[in-house]
Amino acid sequence: MCEAHAFILKNGKEEKVLDDVDLVELNDDEVKLVSIFGEQKTLKARLKFYNNTERKILFEPV
Amino acid sequence: MCEAHAFILKNGKEEKVLDDVDLVELNDDEVKLVSIFGEQKTLKARLKFYNNTERKILFEPV
Repeated sequence: MCEAHAFILKNGKEEKVLDDVDLVELNDDEVKLVSIFGEQKTLKARLKFYNNTERKILFEPV
Repeated sequence: MCEAHAFILKNGKEEKVLDDVDLVELNDDEVKLVSIFGEQKTLKARLKFYNNTERKILFEPV
């Protein structure tokens, strides 16, 4: 429905990390993503950009 | 519709910063928020938490 999709910037390109993101939680440099289906991903990254219209959450590595 | 609302954590409490956030852009420690109505806010902060179900974007000061 309204879920956004998470990408990470790698070598100037956006790579999909997780679809239908429900939760994003940051602790220091660690980003934990949880989808509406319960799928989890953890990244060493920080938020770069969020675009609600495009439903996109873009991270960059740290 | 699907827009989220931005809060910042201050002294353990969540303070509303901006409603109906369309864009979030981070450059170093500076967060620029733009609402669907074009209202803009700039914070010295970083993302702490995003909850899609609650439509909440929570920042913490840096």
